Amino acid sequence: MATVSMKQDPSVLAARLGRAAETAAGADLDALLISPGSDLRYLIGAGAGSFERLSCLVLPAAGHDAPPALVLPKLEELGYADVPASELGIEVVTWVDGENPYAIVTDLLRRGGAAPARVAVADVMPALHTFPLRDALPGAEQVLAGGVLRELRMRKDAAEVEALRKAGAAIDRVHARMAEFLKAGRTEAEVGADITEAIVAEGHVEAAFVIVGSGPNGASPHHALSDRVVQEGDVVVIDIGGPIAEGYNSDCTRTYAVGEPSQDDVRDTYAVLQAAQRAAVEAVRPGVTAESIDAAAREPIAAAGFGDFFVHRTGHGIGLDVHEDPYVVDGDKTVLEPGMAFSVEPGIYQPGRWGARIEDIVIVTEDGVESVNNQPHELIVLPA
Amino acid sequence: MATVSMKQDPSVLAARLGRAAETAAGADLDALLISPGSDLRYLIGAGAGSFERLSCLVLPAAGHDAPPALVLPKLEELGYADVPASELGIEVVTWVDGENPYAIVTDLLRRGGAAPARVAVADVMPALHTFPLRDALPGAEQVLAGGVLRELRMRKDAAEVEALRKAGAAIDRVHARMAEFLKAGRTEAEVGADITEAIVAEGHVEAAFVIVGSGPNGASPHHALSDRVVQEGDVVVIDIGGPIAEGYNSDCTRTYAVGEPSQDDVRDTYAVLQAAQRAAVEAVRPGVTAESIDAAAREPIAAAGFGDFFVHRTGHGIGLDVHEDPYVVDGDKTVLEPGMAFSVEPGIYQPGRWGARIEDIVIVTEDGVESVNNQPHELIVLPA
Repeated sequence: MATVSMKQDPSVLAARLGRAAETAAGADLDALLISPGSDLRYLIGAGAGSFERLSCLVLPAAGHDAPPALVLPKLEELGYADVPASELGIEVVTWVDGENPYAIVTDLLRRGGAAPARVAVADVMPALHTFPLRDALPGAEQVLAGGVLRELRMRKDAAEVEALRKAGAAIDRVHARMAEFLKAGRTEAEVGADITEAIVAEGHVEAAFVIVGSGPNGASPHHALSDRVVQEGDVVVIDIGGPIAEGYNSDCTRTYAVGEPSQDDVRDTYAVLQAAQRAAVEAVRPGVTAESIDAAAREPIAAAGFGDFFVHRTGHGIGLDVHEDPYVVDGDKTVLEPGMAFSVEPGIYQPGRWGARIEDIVIVTEDGVESVNNQPHELIVLPA
Repeated sequence: MATVSMKQDPSVLAARLGRAAETAAGADLDALLISPGSDLRYLIGAGAGSFERLSCLVLPAAGHDAPPALVLPKLEELGYADVPASELGIEVVTWVDGENPYAIVTDLLRRGGAAPARVAVADVMPALHTFPLRDALPGAEQVLAGGVLRELRMRKDAAEVEALRKAGAAIDRVHARMAEFLKAGRTEAEVGADITEAIVAEGHVEAAFVIVGSGPNGASPHHALSDRVVQEGDVVVIDIGGPIAEGYNSDCTRTYAVGEPSQDDVRDTYAVLQAAQRAAVEAVRPGVTAESIDAAAREPIAAAGFGDFFVHRTGHGIGLDVHEDPYVVDGDKTVLEPGMAFSVEPGIYQPGRWGARIEDIVIVTEDGVESVNNQPHELIVLPA
């Protein structure tokens, strides 16, 4: 149901299309074929579409003569009414049921002269469309377009950073109201339903995810909601977020205690986690690698003997998708640059007992880091 | 956020897996590779999964020695906890970040002996996974699995029919309450928000779509919601539905007038539409083609001179997906059998003025047809 779109300055979109075409040429590609999803929204400001009918941006790599073209089912043209196609030099080609959209794409690709040898396809494009495109272009190798788009989308511009700040402030307002929702005697599902409503009320288009991990459920990082009744003394992990109207996402975790925690080790263990999260955020600056931030979070937790209880990566990039590049994980050697945005969210999970996680979305600045989430990081003790 | 799943009798799932393996063998395939989505839910009763990490049912075609296997990211195993894997003879193979899931699938496929020559991949599987699978199995041709699954999913069993009846009754209850929501002076978006809430309150897991097409917006079949204020005398098309907990969907359209219609041609034109919808429903029985139902709806509308104003197909199959086979459209020569379920939804659209559509979900029975939607088909005049 949710429609998210950011009416973009055409010059911003033109620059993105130009960079994508240049990057494609550098990767020895003839064209990018981008179907509905975040990559398409990033490039032209709209990216809806049905599963069955092919919608596809055909973007020739730099150095090819042909202009970009947007192939759309006639029935779905309305969803692209806000795309400034003529200003972007994009030719819109519609098709109706009975026509073959794959032949249309093929004809567009051949327009530049020689048949394409190598085309990159959006990572999200389903087999329903990639296989007929393959059969319509038997000489062309199909590869993933994700690598090209990653290079662009990782580096947020000023408007994108502003949208992430706005999303961060919206989810902060939900966390600030947590005492209204989270009380002993209510089920996680009841608490979650109220949070879902507050996420929308505080400025999101929808709630993309709502995790209420109470007591032992907090020790399971992928737990969402259950019928477990929150008990006095529980530690509760609340991880929530969603898109705002501009399309950019929030994602923020705080850990709460419902009354004084009933288990003795909570305060000391939480202090280790809080220090680790702060150390990792403070390590963020241009020139260091994504994996070095993971190490900065992991080191103090391991030193305190909890290394085996930190069972996931430290973070993920965020933007039009909740999870995107770069990943804050061992092995991601992306060198941080101003404008990169990602979560810093270490956790400590005591299996079968309780868990805690602290998560902020941070943005790399010219000389350090800015957090878009600014609610207190301490264990927040709510009235039971 | 919504989780939909039907705890299935293992014998039902075993029969489906068996039929899928037989159909695959008949289509000269070595195996089916089914990633999360409705096809997977149909075959094993669960079908969630993240985009980035491969989850995949590897189902060898009948005649191959190897058992079926379910490849899952360790982190997402919980989402498949209800699958009766051992009763179904399915081997569950989990993988963790750093392992190569495509190599795991390849090893499983080679276990039967010779390397596979032809594998069918779920229509929904994204390029992110189909391309690495292709590269891991260089000798194997990849084709779409949709044709195999279509043959099974089109024919609903008794439990599926019961779920469609339940979904139909739930959306009928929402239509029965329309006077609460649809009033002059409210925007389509306000009306739609109330309907969304009622869809959930009346027994759905979520609202999958809510169309409120008032006045001239009703003449645009793909219109959803807008800030247009409903006027006294407007004709309003309300097309709504969503999944119930069992995973099966509702989809029902009624056309309302807010006070007496302000345009003179509404009553007569609507009568043509109502007769056409009834004629099409009455034409449904085993042994006739899907396209013949489209013709039965189209003929009376064309005879009355409105043929050019009926701009879409008459209907679509429905089940775990809102749109699935068979399609009630010229060219779909599927011969109807008991257990097939689809919409019958002709419309007449007067561009720029007003529109009307009537939609029921019907099920083919042994000797005719059953409608799961039973609210009145007349133009419903609500108090303004």
